[in-house]
Amino acid sequence: MPPDPFFAGPGLDRADHLRADPVAILALLCDGEARELVWDNGAPAIDEQGKLRWGPIVGDPPLFLGFDGPSPRFSSLPDGNAPIDARAHFQLLSQLDAAEAPTFAAALSLANWHRRHGYCSVCGTVTDPNRGGWSRKCGNCGAEHYPRVDPVVIMLAEHDGRLLLGRQPHYPPGRYSALAGFVEPGESIEDAVAREIKEEAGIAVVNVTYLCSQPWPFPSSLMVGAHAEALDDSLTIDTNELDDARWFSREEVVAALDGGPAASFQAPPHSAIARTLLERWVDGLK
Amino acid sequence: MPPDPFFAGPGLDRADHLRADPVAILALLCDGEARELVWDNGAPAIDEQGKLRWGPIVGDPPLFLGFDGPSPRFSSLPDGNAPIDARAHFQLLSQLDAAEAPTFAAALSLANWHRRHGYCSVCGTVTDPNRGGWSRKCGNCGAEHYPRVDPVVIMLAEHDGRLLLGRQPHYPPGRYSALAGFVEPGESIEDAVAREIKEEAGIAVVNVTYLCSQPWPFPSSLMVGAHAEALDDSLTIDTNELDDARWFSREEVVAALDGGPAASFQAPPHSAIARTLLERWVDGLK
Ligand SMILES: [Zn+2]
Ligand SMILES: [Zn+2]
Repeated sequence: MPPDPFFAGPGLDRADHLRADPVAILALLCDGEARELVWDNGAPAIDEQGKLRWGPIVGDPPLFLGFDGPSPRFSSLPDGNAPIDARAHFQLLSQLDAAEAPTFAAALSLANWHRRHGYCSVCGTVTDPNRGGWSRKCGNCGAEHYPRVDPVVIMLAEHDGRLLLGRQPHYPPGRYSALAGFVEPGESIEDAVAREIKEEAGIAVVNVTYLCSQPWPFPSSLMVGAHAEALDDSLTIDTNELDDARWFSREEVVAALDGGPAASFQAPPHSAIARTLLERWVDGLK
Repeated sequence: MPPDPFFAGPGLDRADHLRADPVAILALLCDGEARELVWDNGAPAIDEQGKLRWGPIVGDPPLFLGFDGPSPRFSSLPDGNAPIDARAHFQLLSQLDAAEAPTFAAALSLANWHRRHGYCSVCGTVTDPNRGGWSRKCGNCGAEHYPRVDPVVIMLAEHDGRLLLGRQPHYPPGRYSALAGFVEPGESIEDAVAREIKEEAGIAVVNVTYLCSQPWPFPSSLMVGAHAEALDDSLTIDTNELDDARWFSREEVVAALDGGPAASFQAPPHSAIARTLLERWVDGLK
Protein backbone atom coordinates (compact mmCIF):
# COMPACT_ATOMS: atom_id res chain seq x y z
CA MET A 1 0.00 0.00 0.00
CA PRO A 2 1.36 3.46 -0.87
CA PRO A 3 2.41 5.64 2.04
CA ASP A 4 0.05 8.10 3.68
CA PRO A 5 0.09 11.60 2.24
CA PHE A 6 3.05 13.78 3.18
CA PHE A 7 2.26 16.10 6.14
CA ALA A 8 -0.33 13.63 7.52
CA GLY A 9 0.30 11.60 10.65
CA PRO A 10 0.97 12.28 14.30
CA GLY A 11 3.30 15.16 15.05
CA LEU A 12 3.88 16.58 18.50
CA ASP A 13 1.52 15.75 21.37
CA ARG A 14 -0.51 18.97 21.21
CA ALA A 15 -1.62 18.78 24.86
CA ASP A 16 -4.63 20.94 23.96
CA HIS A 17 -5.91 20.91 27.54
CA LEU A 18 -2.94 23.07 28.65
CA ARG A 19 -3.78 25.89 26.25
CA ALA A 20 -6.39 27.38 28.58
CA ASP A 21 -3.84 27.51 31.41
CA PRO A 22 -1.36 30.38 30.90
CA VAL A 23 0.38 29.66 34.21
CA ALA A 24 1.12 26.10 33.15
CA ILE A 25 2.42 27.31 29.78
CA LEU A 26 4.66 29.84 31.50
CA ALA A 27 6.05 27.08 33.71
CA LEU A 28 6.80 24.98 30.61
CA LEU A 29 8.71 27.89 29.10
CA CYS A 30 11.05 27.71 32.10
CA ASP A 31 11.42 23.92 31.81
CA GLY A 32 15.04 22.97 31.11
CA GLU A 33 13.86 20.69 28.31
CA ALA A 34 11.94 23.45 26.52
CA ARG A 35 13.02 24.20 22.96
CA GLU A 36 12.08 26.87 20.45
CA LEU A 37 11.65 26.38 16.70
CA VAL A 38 14.20 28.14 14.48
CA TRP A 39 12.78 30.03 11.51
CA ASP A 40 14.57 30.80 8.27
CA ASN A 41 13.15 33.18 5.70
CA GLY A 42 9.55 32.75 6.88
CA ALA A 43 9.59 28.93 7.15
CA PRO A 44 10.71 26.45 9.82
CA ALA A 45 14.45 25.86 9.40
CA ILE A 46 15.58 22.38 8.28
CA ASP A 47 19.00 20.86 8.95
CA GLU A 48 21.08 18.72 6.59
CA GLN A 49 19.40 15.53 7.82
CA GLY A 50 15.97 16.93 6.97
CA LYS A 51 15.09 17.51 10.64
CA LEU A 52 13.54 20.69 12.05
CA ARG A 53 16.01 22.97 13.86
CA TRP A 54 15.27 23.74 17.52
CA GLY A 55 17.18 26.08 19.81
CA PRO A 56 16.99 27.41 23.36
CA ILE A 57 14.00 29.55 24.39
CA VAL A 58 14.59 33.18 23.42
CA GLY A 59 12.32 35.75 25.05
CA ASP A 60 8.67 34.79 25.29
CA PRO A 61 7.60 32.79 22.21
CA PRO A 62 3.78 32.95 22.04
CA LEU A 63 3.10 29.62 20.28
CA PHE A 64 2.97 26.45 22.40
CA LEU A 65 3.21 23.69 19.81
CA GLY A 66 3.09 20.72 22.21
CA PHE A 67 5.47 18.08 23.52
CA ASP A 68 8.12 15.91 21.92
CA GLY A 69 8.31 13.29 24.68
CA PRO A 70 9.12 15.30 27.82
CA SER A 71 10.33 18.34 25.88
CA PRO A 72 7.90 21.29 25.54
CA ARG A 73 8.12 22.86 22.11
CA PHE A 74 7.50 26.57 21.42
CA SER A 75 7.71 28.94 18.51
CA SER A 76 7.95 32.67 18.04
CA LEU A 77 6.07 34.35 15.23
CA PRO A 78 8.45 34.91 12.31
CA ASP A 79 8.86 38.53 11.29
CA GLY A 80 5.57 39.60 9.72
CA ASN A 81 7.37 41.86 7.28
CA ALA A 82 9.62 39.19 5.82
CA PRO A 83 8.43 38.38 2.31
CA ILE A 84 6.93 34.90 1.99
CA ASP A 85 8.50 33.02 -0.87
CA ALA A 86 6.11 30.15 -1.51
CA ARG A 87 8.31 28.73 -4.25
CA ALA A 88 11.26 28.53 -1.87
CA HIS A 89 8.99 26.87 0.69
CA PHE A 90 7.94 24.20 -1.81
CA GLN A 91 11.58 23.47 -2.57
CA LEU A 92 12.19 22.87 1.13
CA LEU A 93 9.76 19.98 1.06
CA SER A 94 12.08 17.75 -0.96
CA GLN A 95 14.63 18.06 1.88
CA LEU A 96 12.17 17.57 4.77
CA ASP A 97 12.09 14.23 6.62
CA ALA A 98 8.53 12.86 6.35
CA ALA A 99 8.40 12.25 10.11
CA GLU A 100 9.00 15.98 10.68
CA ALA A 101 6.41 17.09 8.13
CA PRO A 102 3.35 17.15 10.48
CA THR A 103 5.15 19.50 12.90
CA PHE A 104 6.41 21.64 10.01
CA ALA A 105 2.82 21.89 8.74
CA ALA A 106 1.34 22.80 12.12
CA ALA A 107 3.94 25.48 12.87
CA LEU A 108 3.87 27.05 9.42
CA SER A 109 0.04 27.02 9.12
CA LEU A 110 -0.33 28.58 12.53
CA ALA A 111 2.31 31.23 11.78
CA ASN A 112 0.72 31.96 8.39
CA TRP A 113 -2.59 32.59 10.14
CA HIS A 114 -1.14 34.92 12.78
CA ARG A 115 0.65 36.87 10.03
CA ARG A 116 -2.64 37.82 8.40
CA HIS A 117 -4.91 38.04 11.44
CA GLY A 118 -3.48 40.77 13.66
CA TYR A 119 -6.77 42.69 13.68
CA CYS A 120 -10.24 41.73 14.87
CA SER A 121 -12.58 41.03 11.94
CA VAL A 122 -15.58 42.00 14.08
CA CYS A 123 -14.43 45.47 15.21
CA GLY A 124 -11.05 46.29 13.61
CA THR A 125 -9.01 46.41 16.83
CA VAL A 126 -5.52 44.89 17.23
CA THR A 127 -5.78 41.40 18.80
CA ASP A 128 -3.36 39.37 20.92
CA PRO A 129 -2.30 35.73 20.81
CA ASN A 130 -4.28 33.63 23.26
CA ARG A 131 -4.45 29.94 24.33
CA GLY A 132 -0.77 29.34 23.67
CA GLY A 133 -1.16 30.88 20.21
CA TRP A 134 -4.07 28.68 19.14
CA SER A 135 -6.41 31.67 19.07
CA ARG A 136 -6.33 35.48 19.16
CA LYS A 137 -8.46 37.55 21.50
CA CYS A 138 -9.89 41.03 20.97
CA GLY A 139 -9.59 43.27 24.03
CA ASN A 140 -12.19 45.66 22.63
CA CYS A 141 -15.21 43.54 21.67
CA GLY A 142 -14.16 40.31 23.38
CA ALA A 143 -14.28 38.19 20.20
CA GLU A 144 -12.02 35.14 20.13
CA HIS A 145 -10.71 34.14 16.72
CA TYR A 146 -9.46 30.65 15.86
CA PRO A 147 -6.98 29.68 13.14
CA ARG A 148 -8.45 29.04 9.73
CA VAL A 149 -8.33 25.57 8.20
CA ASP A 150 -9.64 25.81 4.65
CA PRO A 151 -10.96 22.53 3.24
CA VAL A 152 -10.05 21.90 -0.40
CA VAL A 153 -11.34 18.99 -2.46
CA ILE A 154 -8.85 17.37 -4.85
CA MET A 155 -10.13 14.59 -7.02
CA LEU A 156 -9.58 11.98 -9.67
CA ALA A 157 -12.46 11.83 -12.12
CA GLU A 158 -12.44 8.48 -13.94
CA HIS A 159 -14.12 7.46 -17.18
CA ASP A 160 -13.67 4.18 -18.98
CA GLY A 161 -10.43 3.39 -17.15
CA ARG A 162 -8.87 6.79 -17.77
CA LEU A 163 -8.27 9.65 -15.35
CA LEU A 164 -8.93 13.35 -15.85
CA LEU A 165 -5.94 15.54 -14.93
CA GLY A 166 -5.41 19.24 -15.55
CA ARG A 167 -2.77 21.93 -15.75
CA GLN A 168 -2.95 25.12 -13.72
CA PRO A 169 -1.16 28.08 -15.30
CA HIS A 170 1.54 28.22 -12.59
CA TYR A 171 2.59 24.55 -12.93
CA PRO A 172 6.06 23.66 -14.20
CA PRO A 173 6.20 22.57 -17.86
CA GLY A 174 4.60 19.18 -18.52
CA ARG A 175 2.99 18.85 -15.09
CA TYR A 176 -0.59 17.57 -14.88
CA SER A 177 -2.37 16.98 -11.60
CA ALA A 178 -5.76 16.33 -10.02
CA LEU A 179 -8.41 19.05 -10.25
CA ALA A 180 -9.00 20.88 -6.98
CA GLY A 181 -10.97 23.69 -5.40
CA PHE A 182 -12.11 25.15 -2.09
CA VAL A 183 -15.19 23.77 -0.37
CA GLU A 184 -17.69 26.64 -0.14
CA PRO A 185 -20.17 27.47 2.62
CA GLY A 186 -23.25 25.26 2.35
CA GLU A 187 -21.53 22.35 0.57
CA SER A 188 -20.68 18.82 1.59
CA ILE A 189 -17.39 17.32 0.35
CA GLU A 190 -19.33 15.34 -2.24
CA ASP A 191 -21.19 18.46 -3.45
CA ALA A 192 -17.92 20.39 -3.79
CA VAL A 193 -16.27 17.59 -5.81
CA ALA A 194 -19.18 17.49 -8.26
CA ARG A 195 -19.38 21.30 -8.58
CA GLU A 196 -15.64 21.76 -9.16
CA ILE A 197 -15.40 19.07 -11.86
CA LYS A 198 -18.47 20.52 -13.56
CA GLU A 199 -17.05 24.06 -13.43
CA GLU A 200 -13.51 23.27 -14.50
CA ALA A 201 -14.09 20.47 -17.02
CA GLY A 202 -17.81 20.64 -17.86
CA ILE A 203 -18.61 17.04 -16.92
CA ALA A 204 -21.08 15.53 -14.48
CA VAL A 205 -19.89 12.92 -11.96
CA VAL A 206 -21.53 10.35 -9.67
CA ASN A 207 -20.38 8.03 -6.89
CA VAL A 208 -17.94 10.39 -5.19
CA THR A 209 -15.79 8.45 -2.70
CA TYR A 210 -13.34 9.76 -0.13
CA LEU A 211 -9.74 8.50 -0.34
CA CYS A 212 -7.45 10.29 2.13
CA SER A 213 -6.58 13.75 3.46
CA GLN A 214 -3.59 15.97 4.11
CA PRO A 215 -2.88 19.26 5.85
CA TRP A 216 -1.25 21.71 3.44
CA PRO A 217 0.44 24.72 5.04
CA PHE A 218 0.42 27.09 2.03
CA PRO A 219 -1.15 28.90 3.80
CA SER A 220 -3.44 26.59 5.80
CA SER A 221 -5.58 24.12 3.85
CA LEU A 222 -6.99 20.69 4.52
CA MET A 223 -6.71 18.74 1.27
CA VAL A 224 -9.50 16.17 0.94
CA GLY A 225 -8.73 13.56 -1.71
CA ALA A 226 -11.60 11.90 -3.58
CA HIS A 227 -12.51 9.78 -6.59
CA ALA A 228 -15.55 10.27 -8.81
CA GLU A 229 -17.06 8.49 -11.81
CA ALA A 230 -17.51 10.78 -14.80
CA LEU A 231 -20.68 10.27 -16.82
CA ASP A 232 -18.94 11.14 -20.07
CA ASP A 233 -15.54 12.21 -21.37
CA SER A 234 -16.41 15.24 -23.47
CA LEU A 235 -14.56 18.14 -21.82
CA THR A 236 -15.44 21.83 -21.71
CA ILE A 237 -12.42 23.38 -20.03
CA ASP A 238 -12.68 26.56 -17.93
CA THR A 239 -9.71 28.41 -19.36
CA ASN A 240 -9.78 30.92 -16.49
CA GLU A 241 -8.76 28.11 -14.15
CA LEU A 242 -6.88 25.62 -16.31
CA ASP A 243 -4.44 25.77 -19.19
CA ASP A 244 -5.50 22.29 -20.22
CA ALA A 245 -7.20 19.12 -19.03
CA ARG A 246 -6.91 15.65 -20.56
CA TRP A 247 -7.70 11.99 -19.99
CA PHE A 248 -4.75 9.73 -19.14
CA SER A 249 -4.56 5.95 -19.32
CA ARG A 250 -3.27 3.76 -16.50
CA GLU A 251 -0.09 3.15 -18.53
CA GLU A 252 0.51 6.89 -18.85
CA VAL A 253 0.00 7.40 -15.10
CA VAL A 254 2.36 4.53 -14.27
CA ALA A 255 5.03 5.98 -16.58
CA ALA A 256 4.61 9.45 -15.09
CA LEU A 257 4.97 8.10 -11.54
CA ASP A 258 8.11 6.25 -12.63
CA GLY A 259 9.39 9.52 -14.02
CA GLY A 260 11.30 8.07 -16.95
CA PRO A 261 11.77 9.71 -20.35
CA ALA A 262 8.77 7.85 -21.81
CA ALA A 263 6.33 9.66 -19.53
CA SER A 264 3.69 11.74 -21.33
CA PHE A 265 3.37 14.12 -18.39
CA GLN A 266 5.20 15.10 -15.22
CA ALA A 267 3.54 13.74 -12.08
CA PRO A 268 3.06 15.90 -8.97
CA PRO A 269 5.87 15.85 -6.37
CA HIS A 270 5.98 13.49 -3.39
CA SER A 271 4.69 16.13 -0.99
CA ALA A 272 1.43 16.55 -2.95
CA ILE A 273 -1.60 14.44 -2.05
CA ALA A 274 -2.36 14.37 -5.79
CA ARG A 275 0.60 12.00 -6.16
CA THR A 276 -0.71 9.78 -3.35
CA LEU A 277 -4.09 9.65 -5.12
CA LEU A 278 -2.40 8.57 -8.36
CA GLU A 279 -0.29 5.95 -6.53
CA ARG A 280 -3.38 4.51 -4.86
CA TRP A 281 -5.30 4.46 -8.12
CA VAL A 282 -2.47 2.61 -9.88
CA ASP A 283 -2.38 0.16 -6.98
CA GLY A 284 -6.08 -0.53 -7.54
CA LEU A 285 -7.14 1.03 -4.27
CA LYS A 286 -8.81 3.79 -6.25
CA MET B 1 -29.78 2.89 2.58
CA PRO B 2 -30.33 5.80 4.97
CA PRO B 3 -30.72 9.22 3.40
CA ASP B 4 -27.79 11.55 2.91
CA PRO B 5 -27.13 13.97 5.75
CA PHE B 6 -29.49 16.93 6.04
CA PHE B 7 -28.06 20.09 4.38
CA ALA B 8 -26.00 17.99 1.91
CA GLY B 9 -26.88 17.78 -1.76
CA PRO B 10 -27.22 20.13 -4.68
CA GLY B 11 -28.81 23.48 -3.91
CA LEU B 12 -28.87 26.38 -6.32
CA ASP B 13 -26.61 26.43 -9.39
CA ARG B 14 -23.93 28.69 -7.92
CA ALA B 15 -22.70 29.93 -11.31
CA ASP B 16 -19.35 30.74 -9.70
CA HIS B 17 -17.92 32.03 -12.97
CA LEU B 18 -20.29 35.04 -12.84
CA ARG B 19 -18.98 36.24 -9.48
CA ALA B 20 -15.99 37.99 -11.03
CA ASP B 21 -18.30 39.93 -13.37
CA PRO B 22 -20.10 42.75 -11.48
CA VAL B 23 -21.78 43.98 -14.66
CA ALA B 24 -23.34 40.56 -15.28
CA ILE B 25 -24.52 40.39 -11.67
CA LEU B 26 -26.07 43.86 -11.95
CA ALA B 27 -27.90 42.75 -15.08
CA LEU B 28 -29.24 39.70 -13.23
CA LEU B 29 -30.56 41.97 -10.46
CA CYS B 30 -32.74 43.68 -13.10
CA ASP B 31 -33.93 40.35 -14.52
CA GLY B 32 -37.70 40.02 -14.12
CA GLU B 33 -37.20 36.51 -12.71
CA ALA B 34 -34.80 37.67 -9.98
CA ARG B 35 -35.87 36.99 -6.39
CA GLU B 36 -34.49 37.97 -3.01
CA LEU B 37 -34.38 35.77 0.08
CA VAL B 38 -36.60 36.87 2.97
CA TRP B 39 -34.95 36.85 6.41
CA ASP B 40 -36.72 36.46 9.73
CA ASN B 41 -34.94 37.06 13.02
CA GLY B 42 -31.47 36.44 11.58
CA ALA B 43 -32.32 33.26 9.63
CA PRO B 44 -33.81 32.54 6.19
CA ALA B 45 -37.62 32.67 6.51
CA ILE B 46 -39.53 29.41 6.01
CA ASP B 47 -43.17 29.14 4.92
CA GLU B 48 -45.78 26.69 6.17
CA GLN B 49 -44.78 24.09 3.57
CA GLY B 50 -41.16 24.17 4.77
CA LYS B 51 -39.99 26.14 1.72
CA LEU B 52 -37.71 29.17 1.79
CA ARG B 53 -39.51 32.50 1.33
CA TRP B 54 -38.44 34.66 -1.64
CA GLY B 55 -39.68 38.14 -2.53
CA PRO B 56 -39.01 40.82 -5.12
CA ILE B 57 -35.59 42.47 -5.24
CA VAL B 58 -35.40 45.33 -2.74
CA GLY B 59 -32.56 47.78 -3.15
CA ASP B 60 -29.18 46.24 -3.98
CA PRO B 61 -28.74 42.90 -2.19
CA PRO B 62 -25.00 42.11 -2.16
CA LEU B 63 -25.16 38.29 -2.13
CA PHE B 64 -25.63 36.48 -5.44
CA LEU B 65 -26.60 32.97 -4.35
CA GLY B 66 -27.00 31.45 -7.81
CA PHE B 67 -29.84 30.27 -10.05
CA ASP B 68 -32.99 28.25 -9.45
CA GLY B 69 -33.59 27.24 -13.06
CA PRO B 70 -33.79 30.57 -14.93
CA SER B 71 -34.39 32.62 -11.79
CA PRO B 72 -31.40 34.49 -10.29
CA ARG B 73 -31.44 34.38 -6.50
CA PHE B 74 -30.05 37.13 -4.27
CA SER B 75 -29.89 37.93 -0.60
CA SER B 76 -29.36 41.01 1.48
CA LEU B 77 -27.30 40.78 4.65
CA PRO B 78 -29.63 40.49 7.63
CA ASP B 79 -29.30 43.28 10.18
CA GLY B 80 -25.94 42.79 11.85
CA ASN B 81 -27.31 44.02 15.15
CA ALA B 82 -30.16 41.56 15.39
CA PRO B 83 -29.36 39.04 18.12
CA ILE B 84 -28.73 35.55 16.76
CA ASP B 85 -30.81 32.99 18.59
CA ALA B 86 -29.13 29.69 17.73
CA ARG B 87 -31.72 27.70 19.67
CA ALA B 88 -34.51 29.26 17.60
CA HIS B 89 -32.54 28.45 14.44
CA PHE B 90 -32.22 24.79 15.42
CA GLN B 91 -35.98 24.62 15.97
CA LEU B 92 -36.50 25.89 12.43
CA LEU B 93 -34.77 22.82 11.06
CA SER B 94 -37.62 20.48 12.00
CA GLN B 95 -39.88 22.59 9.74
CA LEU B 96 -37.46 22.91 6.81
CA ASP B 97 -38.02 20.82 3.66
CA ALA B 98 -34.86 18.74 3.09
CA ALA B 99 -34.66 19.86 -0.55
CA GLU B 100 -34.41 23.48 0.64
CA ALA B 101 -31.77 22.74 3.25
CA PRO B 102 -28.65 23.17 1.05
CA THR B 103 -29.76 26.68 0.04
CA PHE B 104 -30.67 27.51 3.64
CA ALA B 105 -27.18 26.37 4.70
CA ALA B 106 -25.37 28.36 2.02
CA ALA B 107 -27.26 31.59 2.68
CA LEU B 108 -27.04 31.38 6.47
CA SER B 109 -23.33 30.38 6.51
CA LEU B 110 -22.45 33.20 4.16
CA ALA B 111 -24.47 35.73 6.14
CA ASN B 112 -22.95 34.50 9.41
CA TRP B 113 -19.50 35.09 7.97
CA HIS B 114 -20.26 38.61 6.72
CA ARG B 115 -21.72 39.49 10.15
CA ARG B 116 -18.40 38.84 11.86
CA HIS B 117 -15.97 39.90 9.13
CA GLY B 118 -16.67 43.55 8.44
CA TYR B 119 -13.03 44.53 9.11
CA CYS B 120 -9.79 43.47 7.43
CA SER B 121 -7.83 41.04 9.62
CA VAL B 122 -4.57 42.19 7.99
CA CYS B 123 -4.88 45.95 8.60
CA GLY B 124 -8.09 46.67 10.58
CA THR B 125 -9.88 48.67 7.85
CA VAL B 126 -13.60 48.29 7.00
CA THR B 127 -14.03 45.91 4.03
CA ASP B 128 -16.72 45.64 1.36
CA PRO B 129 -18.54 42.66 -0.13
CA ASN B 130 -16.95 41.50 -3.37
CA ARG B 131 -17.54 38.75 -5.98
CA GLY B 132 -21.29 38.74 -5.46
CA GLY B 133 -20.76 38.43 -1.71
CA TRP B 134 -18.43 35.40 -1.90
CA SER B 135 -15.51 37.46 -0.63
CA ARG B 136 -14.75 40.81 1.02
CA LYS B 137 -12.11 43.21 -0.25
CA CYS B 138 -9.98 45.67 1.70
CA GLY B 139 -9.65 49.05 -0.01
CA ASN B 140 -6.66 49.92 2.16
CA CYS B 141 -4.23 46.99 1.90
CA GLY B 142 -5.87 45.16 -1.01
CA ALA B 143 -6.35 41.88 0.89
CA GLU B 144 -9.23 39.71 -0.31
CA HIS B 145 -10.90 37.61 2.37
CA TYR B 146 -12.93 34.48 1.62
CA PRO B 147 -15.70 32.95 3.74
CA ARG B 148 -14.59 30.55 6.42
CA VAL B 149 -15.55 26.89 6.24
CA ASP B 150 -14.41 25.22 9.45
CA PRO B 151 -13.90 21.45 9.16
CA VAL B 152 -15.13 19.48 12.18
CA VAL B 153 -14.61 15.74 12.65
CA ILE B 154 -17.53 13.83 14.18
CA MET B 155 -17.00 10.16 14.81
CA LEU B 156 -18.25 6.84 16.04
CA ALA B 157 -15.61 4.97 18.01
CA GLU B 158 -16.44 1.27 18.13
CA HIS B 159 -15.21 -1.45 20.49
CA ASP B 160 -16.46 -5.01 20.65
CA GLY B 161 -19.71 -4.15 18.82
CA ARG B 162 -20.51 -1.13 20.98
CA LEU B 163 -20.34 2.57 20.14
CA LEU B 164 -18.91 5.40 22.20
CA LEU B 165 -21.29 8.36 22.51
CA GLY B 166 -21.03 11.39 24.76
CA ARG B 167 -23.05 14.22 26.28
CA GLN B 168 -22.05 17.85 25.89
CA PRO B 169 -23.24 20.10 28.72
CA HIS B 170 -25.69 22.05 26.53
CA TYR B 171 -27.53 18.94 25.22
CA PRO B 172 -31.19 18.37 26.13
CA PRO B 173 -31.75 15.81 28.93
CA GLY B 174 -30.97 12.22 27.92
CA ARG B 175 -29.29 13.14 24.62
CA TYR B 176 -26.07 11.32 23.66
CA SER B 177 -24.29 11.89 20.37
CA ALA B 178 -21.04 11.29 18.49
CA LEU B 179 -17.87 12.96 19.80
CA ALA B 180 -16.73 15.89 17.66
CA GLY B 181 -14.11 18.60 17.40
CA PHE B 182 -12.51 21.10 15.03
CA VAL B 183 -9.71 19.99 12.72
CA GLU B 184 -6.63 22.03 13.67
CA PRO B 185 -3.87 23.44 11.45
CA GLY B 186 -1.40 20.72 10.52
CA GLU B 187 -3.79 17.78 10.91
CA SER B 188 -5.36 15.36 8.46
CA ILE B 189 -8.95 14.24 9.06
CA GLU B 190 -7.63 10.94 10.39
CA ASP B 191 -5.20 12.70 12.78
CA ALA B 192 -7.97 14.92 14.12
CA VAL B 193 -10.29 11.97 14.76
CA ALA B 194 -7.62 10.15 16.75
CA ARG B 195 -6.62 13.25 18.73
CA GLU B 196 -10.19 14.22 19.64
CA ILE B 197 -11.15 10.73 20.86
CA LYS B 198 -7.93 10.55 22.87
CA GLU B 199 -8.53 13.98 24.41
CA GLU B 200 -12.20 13.60 25.20
CA ALA B 201 -12.39 9.92 26.16
CA GLY B 202 -8.79 8.85 26.79
CA ILE B 203 -8.73 5.98 24.29
CA ALA B 204 -6.53 5.24 21.30
CA VAL B 205 -8.12 4.36 17.96
CA VAL B 206 -6.98 2.81 14.68
CA ASN B 207 -8.45 2.28 11.22
CA VAL B 208 -10.22 5.62 10.88
CA THR B 209 -12.61 5.52 7.92
CA TYR B 210 -14.58 8.36 6.33
CA LEU B 211 -18.36 7.97 6.14
CA CYS B 212 -20.08 11.13 4.87
CA SER B 213 -20.10 14.90 5.27
CA GLN B 214 -22.49 17.78 5.83
CA PRO B 215 -22.36 21.56 5.80
CA TRP B 216 -23.57 22.96 9.13
CA PRO B 217 -24.45 26.66 9.13
CA PHE B 218 -24.07 27.37 12.88
CA PRO B 219 -22.04 29.40 12.06
CA SER B 220 -20.21 27.78 9.11
CA SER B 221 -18.79 24.29 9.62
CA LEU B 222 -18.11 21.31 7.41
CA MET B 223 -18.99 18.23 9.45
CA VAL B 224 -16.85 15.23 8.44
CA GLY B 225 -18.33 11.96 9.69
CA ALA B 226 -15.99 9.05 10.45
CA HIS B 227 -15.73 5.65 12.14
CA ALA B 228 -12.77 4.44 14.19
CA GLU B 229 -11.83 1.22 15.99
CA ALA B 230 -11.05 1.76 19.66
CA LEU B 231 -8.17 -0.28 21.07
CA ASP B 232 -9.85 -0.60 24.47
CA ASP B 233 -13.01 0.49 26.27
CA SER B 234 -11.62 1.99 29.46
CA LEU B 235 -12.70 5.64 29.37
CA THR B 236 -11.03 8.69 30.89
CA ILE B 237 -13.55 11.45 30.24
CA ASP B 238 -12.49 15.08 29.79
CA THR B 239 -15.06 16.71 32.05
CA ASN B 240 -14.29 20.14 30.61
CA GLU B 241 -15.76 18.98 27.31
CA LEU B 242 -18.26 16.27 28.22
CA ASP B 243 -20.77 15.65 30.99
CA ASP B 244 -20.53 11.94 30.29
CA ALA B 245 -19.51 9.34 27.71
CA ARG B 246 -20.63 5.71 27.53
CA TRP B 247 -20.62 2.64 25.35
CA PHE B 248 -23.96 1.71 23.74
CA SER B 249 -24.97 -1.62 22.22
CA ARG B 250 -26.55 -1.96 18.79
CA GLU B 251 -29.90 -2.69 20.50
CA GLU B 252 -29.67 0.54 22.48
CA VAL B 253 -28.87 2.55 19.35
CA VAL B 254 -31.76 0.95 17.45
CA ALA B 255 -34.17 1.75 20.30
CA ALA B 256 -32.92 5.33 20.49
CA LEU B 257 -33.36 5.84 16.73
CA ASP B 258 -36.89 4.42 17.04
CA GLY B 259 -37.51 6.91 19.83
CA GLY B 260 -39.85 4.75 21.88
CA PRO B 261 -40.16 4.75 25.68
CA ALA B 262 -37.68 1.85 26.01
CA ALA B 263 -34.79 3.92 24.65
CA SER B 264 -31.87 4.31 27.04
CA PHE B 265 -30.88 7.63 25.47
CA GLN B 266 -32.26 10.30 23.18
CA ALA B 267 -30.78 10.16 19.67
CA PRO B 268 -29.67 13.33 17.83
CA PRO B 269 -32.29 15.07 15.64
CA HIS B 270 -32.76 14.37 11.92
CA SER B 271 -30.80 17.45 10.90
CA ALA B 272 -27.63 16.22 12.66
CA ILE B 273 -25.08 14.14 10.75
CA ALA B 274 -24.57 12.23 14.02
CA ARG B 275 -27.98 10.67 13.46
CA THR B 276 -27.04 9.71 9.89
CA LEU B 277 -23.89 8.07 11.23
CA LEU B 278 -25.92 6.04 13.72
CA GLU B 279 -28.46 5.06 11.03
CA ARG B 280 -25.69 3.86 8.73
CA TRP B 281 -24.00 1.94 11.52
CA VAL B 282 -27.25 0.17 12.41
CA ASP B 283 -27.73 -0.63 8.72
CA GLY B 284 -24.29 -2.28 8.71
CA LEU B 285 -22.80 0.28 6.36
CA LYS B 286 -20.68 1.61 9.21
ZN1 LIG C 1 -13.05 43.05 18.31
ZN1 LIG D 1 -6.57 45.53 4.82
